[in-house]
Amino acid sequence: MVIRWGICSAGKISHDFTVALKTLPAENHQVLAVAARDLKRAQEFAQKHSIPRAYGCYEDLAKDPEIDVVYVGTIHPHHLSHGVLFMNAQKNVLCEKPLAMNLREVQELIASAQNNHVFLMEAVWTRFFPVSLEIGRLLSQGEVGELKLARADFGVPLTHVPRAVEKELGGGALLDIGIYCLQFVLMVFNGERPESIQATGVCLDTGVDEAMVITLKFSGHRLAVCTCTISAELPNEAVIVGTKGTIKVPAHMWCPTSLLVNGVETQYPVPEPTLPLNFINSTGMCYEAEEVRRCLLAGLKQSSRMSHADSALLAEIMDEARRQVGVVYSQDSQ
Amino acid sequence: MVIRWGICSAGKISHDFTVALKTLPAENHQVLAVAARDLKRAQEFAQKHSIPRAYGCYEDLAKDPEIDVVYVGTIHPHHLSHGVLFMNAQKNVLCEKPLAMNLREVQELIASAQNNHVFLMEAVWTRFFPVSLEIGRLLSQGEVGELKLARADFGVPLTHVPRAVEKELGGGALLDIGIYCLQFVLMVFNGERPESIQATGVCLDTGVDEAMVITLKFSGHRLAVCTCTISAELPNEAVIVGTKGTIKVPAHMWCPTSLLVNGVETQYPVPEPTLPLNFINSTGMCYEAEEVRRCLLAGLKQSSRMSHADSALLAEIMDEARRQVGVVYSQDSQ
Repeated sequence: MVIRWGICSAGKISHDFTVALKTLPAENHQVLAVAARDLKRAQEFAQKHSIPRAYGCYEDLAKDPEIDVVYVGTIHPHHLSHGVLFMNAQKNVLCEKPLAMNLREVQELIASAQNNHVFLMEAVWTRFFPVSLEIGRLLSQGEVGELKLARADFGVPLTHVPRAVEKELGGGALLDIGIYCLQFVLMVFNGERPESIQATGVCLDTGVDEAMVITLKFSGHRLAVCTCTISAELPNEAVIVGTKGTIKVPAHMWCPTSLLVNGVETQYPVPEPTLPLNFINSTGMCYEAEEVRRCLLAGLKQSSRMSHADSALLAEIMDEARRQVGVVYSQDSQ
Repeated sequence: MVIRWGICSAGKISHDFTVALKTLPAENHQVLAVAARDLKRAQEFAQKHSIPRAYGCYEDLAKDPEIDVVYVGTIHPHHLSHGVLFMNAQKNVLCEKPLAMNLREVQELIASAQNNHVFLMEAVWTRFFPVSLEIGRLLSQGEVGELKLARADFGVPLTHVPRAVEKELGGGALLDIGIYCLQFVLMVFNGERPESIQATGVCLDTGVDEAMVITLKFSGHRLAVCTCTISAELPNEAVIVGTKGTIKVPAHMWCPTSLLVNGVETQYPVPEPTLPLNFINSTGMCYEAEEVRRCLLAGLKQSSRMSHADSALLAEIMDEARRQVGVVYSQDSQ
């Protein structure tokens, strides 16, 4: 059965997501419509990707009765309003990460999904990569012994990119890229709530975080360290250390195509794109799209691999880290 | 001119240090005497290493008028008393790390060195490796641009080793091995005092730290992360990230024999040992021994590469990290 997608926003990430969908069987996934605030941009996007319908406002996409699920690819300050718009129109929603600006907004989105009986998932695409599934298998089977420490870092120079540095655009290292480190750690620790959260960071003149280090303590003497920065290129690796071995996710840990288990590497290539991509390995978004389809066909309202509780915990930790470092968005005072 | 060494304690590290000295020209370094609490052990050690004199107590070594400098290889709870013993006897001292149990003890040792007009250095051997000198050159010449972040980790399973876990023996991950991460970071940041120190850790039932993560913030929006554990094997690497590139010290970062600058690796092998070693790359202790000789011949009372101030700052940061994690030694209440 085909899942009919609507794409909300005609930006770079929406382009890549649409290319990723094209790597999947056409009988399973169809992109039926795209919406942008500017009709011309929507039409150009539709033409480039052979999408039947183009809308000049998101409300029209919400009203389209043949859309099963909307991919929300706008910047995160808009996620709450756009997510609610589509869910109130009984659309299922796959929303880019971060799901919203803070825990309060995330809870509003979750409440909207529950009230409207629709599916909602934060597009933490990394979790659905074959590498992530293999990590889950290795950990559950105790392949590296008792889990002791997880570490992830994500740093790329982005201070020239307005959406990464301007506060009103939701800028800041943590929400943009640090979230990948946190979600990795929470995946490794099975969504467990950490016993303590410590964050050290430095801020740009715009008031958003340029870099942050977050240390989490989990039950059973287990630690995690996340490092993110938008002012330099980090190794961009992730490491899981157990009493009997080490799992390493080489760069780029947020879209991994290889895995080292005690030094032995296995490759997990992503599908080849049919159009040039804006970001690295973006066709790997096909894995999360497949998860959405699986959930919708099963009548599920959330994915167990990236549940509402997972999104809420992510937001809660990011709120606390921002509080410690002193990063405040206008949404925090509402 | 030959430097005549006395070796205080006949343990594993003293063995390795003596083997390291043997890799240097005999006309520059002579091991004249060894002392242990047990004369028989001292005599066995002397025989194994062809050392002319063996003493059954440290006081006799202190009284030997022909000793220029004493290597103190006892466990750290004894460093203060042994260091003071030798310095009061007008001996120069190279003392194993950590220099003492806390800042107060370190300050007592420094005061003793100053009052006795003798040389004192904490045996942070890593700082004198060719890799460390090359890192200093690269940073001072801006080879990786503006420094942004440094990270180091050191983790090895040591919970079966009494001196690593028993509080009265000075056990705990930070003082035993975490100090290598901290000293690396402080070397990279030129001995600058961090603006903030955050530590998260977990403790063994013995009350010492099993693992710790320490995050430091330095001037100019620069961060550092140190991770240590005695319950698992970490990658044991160090990374320096600048705006224009990355320097990586592969395992084992505390005794490094290779360096990657923007992915290009250079090897810096340590000398071959003439006897089997207890620890990895221990012949690399020859570099610190050469520094001691250089300083003594120049009439210096401390080394600029591992100064008294460097030792005091290391101790101060470790005190603060232990305070945050709740690791208290009996020496802390004196």
